[in-house]
Amino acid sequence: MAEAPIRLGMVGGGDDAFIGGVHRIAARLDGHYTLLAGALSSTPEKARASAEVLGLARGYDTFAEMAQAEAARDDGIEAVAIVTPNHVHAPAAIAFLEQGIHVICDKPLTSTMADAERLEKAARTSGALFMLTHNYTGYPMIRQARQMIAEGELGDVRLVNVEYVQDWMTGPAQGKQAEWRVDPARSGAGGAIGDIGTHAYNLACFVSGLTLDRLAADLDAFGTGRTLDDNAHVMLRWKGGAKGMLWCSQVAPGNENALRLRVYGDKGGLDWSQEDPNALWFTPFGEPKRLLTRNGAGATEANARMSRVPGGHPEGYLEAFANLYSETARAIHAHRRGGAVPGDLLFPTIADGMDGMRFIDACVRSSSNDSAWETP
Amino acid sequence: MAEAPIRLGMVGGGDDAFIGGVHRIAARLDGHYTLLAGALSSTPEKARASAEVLGLARGYDTFAEMAQAEAARDDGIEAVAIVTPNHVHAPAAIAFLEQGIHVICDKPLTSTMADAERLEKAARTSGALFMLTHNYTGYPMIRQARQMIAEGELGDVRLVNVEYVQDWMTGPAQGKQAEWRVDPARSGAGGAIGDIGTHAYNLACFVSGLTLDRLAADLDAFGTGRTLDDNAHVMLRWKGGAKGMLWCSQVAPGNENALRLRVYGDKGGLDWSQEDPNALWFTPFGEPKRLLTRNGAGATEANARMSRVPGGHPEGYLEAFANLYSETARAIHAHRRGGAVPGDLLFPTIADGMDGMRFIDACVRSSSNDSAWETP
Amino acid sequence: MAEAPIRLGMVGGGDDAFIGGVHRIAARLDGHYTLLAGALSSTPEKARASAEVLGLARGYDTFAEMAQAEAARDDGIEAVAIVTPNHVHAPAAIAFLEQGIHVICDKPLTSTMADAERLEKAARTSGALFMLTHNYTGYPMIRQARQMIAEGELGDVRLVNVEYVQDWMTGPAQGKQAEWRVDPARSGAGGAIGDIGTHAYNLACFVSGLTLDRLAADLDAFGTGRTLDDNAHVMLRWKGGAKGMLWCSQVAPGNENALRLRVYGDKGGLDWSQEDPNALWFTPFGEPKRLLTRNGAGATEANARMSRVPGGHPEGYLEAFANLYSETARAIHAHRRGGAVPGDLLFPTIADGMDGMRFIDACVRSSSNDSAWETP
Amino acid sequence: MAEAPIRLGMVGGGDDAFIGGVHRIAARLDGHYTLLAGALSSTPEKARASAEVLGLARGYDTFAEMAQAEAARDDGIEAVAIVTPNHVHAPAAIAFLEQGIHVICDKPLTSTMADAERLEKAARTSGALFMLTHNYTGYPMIRQARQMIAEGELGDVRLVNVEYVQDWMTGPAQGKQAEWRVDPARSGAGGAIGDIGTHAYNLACFVSGLTLDRLAADLDAFGTGRTLDDNAHVMLRWKGGAKGMLWCSQVAPGNENALRLRVYGDKGGLDWSQEDPNALWFTPFGEPKRLLTRNGAGATEANARMSRVPGGHPEGYLEAFANLYSETARAIHAHRRGGAVPGDLLFPTIADGMDGMRFIDACVRSSSNDSAWETP
Repeated sequence: MAEAPIRLGMVGGGDDAFIGGVHRIAARLDGHYTLLAGALSSTPEKARASAEVLGLARGYDTFAEMAQAEAARDDGIEAVAIVTPNHVHAPAAIAFLEQGIHVICDKPLTSTMADAERLEKAARTSGALFMLTHNYTGYPMIRQARQMIAEGELGDVRLVNVEYVQDWMTGPAQGKQAEWRVDPARSGAGGAIGDIGTHAYNLACFVSGLTLDRLAADLDAFGTGRTLDDNAHVMLRWKGGAKGMLWCSQVAPGNENALRLRVYGDKGGLDWSQEDPNALWFTPFGEPKRLLTRNGAGATEANARMSRVPGGHPEGYLEAFANLYSETARAIHAHRRGGAVPGDLLFPTIADGMDGMRFIDACVRSSSNDSAWETP
Repeated sequence: MAEAPIRLGMVGGGDDAFIGGVHRIAARLDGHYTLLAGALSSTPEKARASAEVLGLARGYDTFAEMAQAEAARDDGIEAVAIVTPNHVHAPAAIAFLEQGIHVICDKPLTSTMADAERLEKAARTSGALFMLTHNYTGYPMIRQARQMIAEGELGDVRLVNVEYVQDWMTGPAQGKQAEWRVDPARSGAGGAIGDIGTHAYNLACFVSGLTLDRLAADLDAFGTGRTLDDNAHVMLRWKGGAKGMLWCSQVAPGNENALRLRVYGDKGGLDWSQEDPNALWFTPFGEPKRLLTRNGAGATEANARMSRVPGGHPEGYLEAFANLYSETARAIHAHRRGGAVPGDLLFPTIADGMDGMRFIDACVRSSSNDSAWETP
Repeated sequence: MAEAPIRLGMVGGGDDAFIGGVHRIAARLDGHYTLLAGALSSTPEKARASAEVLGLARGYDTFAEMAQAEAARDDGIEAVAIVTPNHVHAPAAIAFLEQGIHVICDKPLTSTMADAERLEKAARTSGALFMLTHNYTGYPMIRQARQMIAEGELGDVRLVNVEYVQDWMTGPAQGKQAEWRVDPARSGAGGAIGDIGTHAYNLACFVSGLTLDRLAADLDAFGTGRTLDDNAHVMLRWKGGAKGMLWCSQVAPGNENALRLRVYGDKGGLDWSQEDPNALWFTPFGEPKRLLTRNGAGATEANARMSRVPGGHPEGYLEAFANLYSETARAIHAHRRGGAVPGDLLFPTIADGMDGMRFIDACVRSSSNDSAWETP
Repeated sequence: MAEAPIRLGMVGGGDDAFIGGVHRIAARLDGHYTLLAGALSSTPEKARASAEVLGLARGYDTFAEMAQAEAARDDGIEAVAIVTPNHVHAPAAIAFLEQGIHVICDKPLTSTMADAERLEKAARTSGALFMLTHNYTGYPMIRQARQMIAEGELGDVRLVNVEYVQDWMTGPAQGKQAEWRVDPARSGAGGAIGDIGTHAYNLACFVSGLTLDRLAADLDAFGTGRTLDDNAHVMLRWKGGAKGMLWCSQVAPGNENALRLRVYGDKGGLDWSQEDPNALWFTPFGEPKRLLTRNGAGATEANARMSRVPGGHPEGYLEAFANLYSETARAIHAHRRGGAVPGDLLFPTIADGMDGMRFIDACVRSSSNDSAWETP
């Protein structure tokens, strides 16, 4: 009694974009979506050409046109993926939310706080769902880490340290991926802190269950002629007394996509690295370290539910991304039937997006203010 | 512009099967196939129920019925995935090949040599394609390893050692996955040597480019009441003078799916582990070890072509599996147009399947003959 | 033409102490010292008993007595190792320096700034040598890292991040090792920041060649009833524009002695972990990571000179410690002959000790001052 | 209270030899020996020059002269370390054993079976002790592995697989270390199988507690012009039904000194690598893998007794070597007092040496006999 696939559209993600292809695979992987329509570029000719290359049923010149036209069709899209540079997130998402079309939006939420607030309002007032692709929360071991902490296996959490380190901006920014990221008009006030720092921050909150109280940040732009940060050091004070550090960098040679989260409590510790995502180190204090694995011995229900294949058969980035799409699909299925979103569903929402925007903003403020402690 | 998806059927792979789900994801991941029809179980009621759960357009009671009915339709399937226990591979594959329907078949090829020969003949005389899912050959780093060796980066190859170690059969065989594997009638004369040893052997051949001359094997069944081997030690003599070892086991606690290949020549060495598939260790003799990565610094064309996302964003088992499906899709697309299979395409064929069968047979013979050297 | 062994004494290090035994092995390992005399405990009976257990030729009740008596002998000790709790370092070291006896002193330099200044004066005015056992600088791969950076292999250094993480103070402080470390009277104003943070800081300076400009620190005492910090987060601003972070903790379950240093420049990066000390990751930007090894392929002269056995035969903590002792022995040999200390010699001196004290002091000040940037 | 150091001599180990220096450090590390006399080279001038460089009290031209002269002195050596090429082991060891001087001998025992038998007889009839430096048995984690298996933590052992892989003979044999190893007259009938294969075999026996029933070997000499093997593949059948493989190679680029032992039983598995010697992977079947550490959480008594410093402070090759020296020192101390060797002492003896010789012999026989199963 398979559910009919969800009719999906896409804004951005023309055929030379990285993240658009990722969203398409993520939507396809578990078979819950069919991609039908798109406004795949801000340049109409490119948009149409990309739609043809991808074999979309309906290609549009602009997202505004697409939102209206799709809403008017009986067989119009039910959900849209927004995978543009940051500054387009808000207007595009709002256009679809206003038509009651569910939005799956890349991170960070928007490029400005004002945009974020407008989008939040639109999401709150729309009947449609909003999911933000903080995709690292889709990893099975991350789900297990969250569950273990919630169930008290670490005791009282004292430390949440997270780092997200890359090297691809070590030299001059080159290529489409780099160019818009170093442009404040398209990226926003944060460079690395917005692009990857928000991922790290979101992951730390997601797993630990903690809320940030204050932060002190030191942001740098090492790349020649760069105005946005490409490296950020941040000290964290969590509500309730825990502490932490966050480091993100795009100028650290030898690091491809090295996101690592460590959480320590008075009873135990956890250590997870995105580049080895099927493993989670767990140490109950005073006992040997244990290597927990995806869908392997010691897997919790939260881990197994996000897994497709047995332990030892690596799942990766695309599967984690697909997990968010599939969780969202379950929510959309419930919405179709007029029911509530199932209680065990978990995906990043507009609230996480707002939280990330406040985090970027506080980092930029603190760094401008000689690293004074700021409230996000 | 986009090619129309290939109409796909499936034999076996009812909803409680492991490998059926893997094939379905692999077919879906890059968007080249649409699964339309199936005979998903040897029990007709289960077959029909599974087809309904999966939302297939056409469910059949038996593969024979399906082959005939689909061949008779204008919109019938163009290809079929066969994911049954080993003893069904031959009759099912032959039924579809005789109808000119392309076959994607799980490994090992068949359960008996006689079946293998019948199937080989059918594949040779059919105009349809035959692909065997030795899925580990789909990993990007494996492709790079093969390319590097072919281009002489290791010099003359002296050693090819491979191991494939699991632990899930350490205790008594339990559950559907284990049961048929310990039954010679369904599995064939090889236990672990057929189930995973053939993968290891195939990978060693694929990467090294060598052909086996002789082998000496020692097979054991450690599990209580087991007649088929669950552990095999094999010494290898490759044509041209290289040597090697192959160890496969399903009774080694602490190993989930630990397939590892090491190749050494007079100029350098390579080391790859399936559980860390995005990395490949390469050492030019006398220089520091280098960690090559999927789609990262030092990636060859063969590596990049099999990659979807940048280095540091792990791809895994399903992506490697999907690579075979997508390579096969390119071949089927060429076949549709009446053209030849593109020269740069690379996927395991009936020849690999026959080679694997001769390998199993030689291992069983050698082990029965006090580990005498046997020719496969 | 072997040099006669150096006659060595020891203050502290009775037979239940950890670090005393380490110093004795380090002195013995390369055969450059003979331990003859000791005042091994602040309790005279224990001091005498320990001297007997260790088979020392001359046991003393107090270091003051020992300094005088040994200086008066023709065959008196030429050097003394001071391995007491921190608050005894200054008076003991001064007593021996005033007698012209070389001092090998554990870190941190002293427990108070006033003591440090007194000791610095004594070291400056004494003709004897002073070596501080920042033992991690003795690792061969650390020597290689320093050499590579000095020779420009990383280009301009942008980031120096260091962490030193342990877990043994996660619960209540127990045992001799823990007790004095949580007592400000014996340990000084810094807890973890003094005990291990100074090691991390020293290592960062030693390898990078940079000088710290300012720091911002957040110190915590998580352990029940603890007044001294057991966790410290510190942001670093190096002179010349590089940045960094330092994290030290003794309450992070799953970490035994996890000191890790990462340095990144515009041309490459280095990554070293004390628990895997025979390896050093080096990535020239845009090339594959390379795993450099102790005395292996790619070893520099600085690496090879600190190694005893070929690569692949692990050397560890004791060998690194012994390297400092052996470097100091070469200096003492030169001193015996009235010559200058050889120019290629490298061991931590009183200047490093003062630098460490200013680092602790600045961390404590910054943390008390809401993490304001402070100059060390 | 402290025992007087043992008066030690050395045969071989002139100042350009690798293993002589290792023995000297191992003897010195724990302070139980004083090296006084030596016949350090087969060339008298080199022997005398080396003795002077090392500052030995008494240098001899030949071991025969040394054995007689030292036995005649009241303060003569009590023990001698024999660190020559293999063919000198027997005559030298016999000369000292006949004088009642304890012998510490490098491996393999001798270069010929006839020599081995003569030496065994001498050892049996001498009142002096004989210790063979199968140094890898001195690692703390190896001691723990042995203890765990003896105590049944793996259940019934089914598999013992060991490999010892190096690369330094990949090219032509060069330098003193390589030259005698490729010369049958000095090395014996085994090349790599004697040099490192015996280590691997000894370790497998030591840890598993099993006795070998039969083996089937395939030996190769890949290096140009080489007559002795530089690579060996061996299948093992242990008494009682367990199986195994042994692979040793000196022509595998990228391997420095990669000795690895894996043991699997019906209840659990162990995995240890010499290049990461402070760790031991232990998996109770069906539970997560655990990383046991030297002197860390989960350390057994056998582990802790062989450790000097806490977990996280790496000990290595030299410490493991020193453990054998120190165990032997306890035996010599007992011998001095006329007592029996303490029951908890454990070091490789003449029996292990004979076992190793039979292993080499059986490997050579099997390989010459088309890899037929041979009894060692």
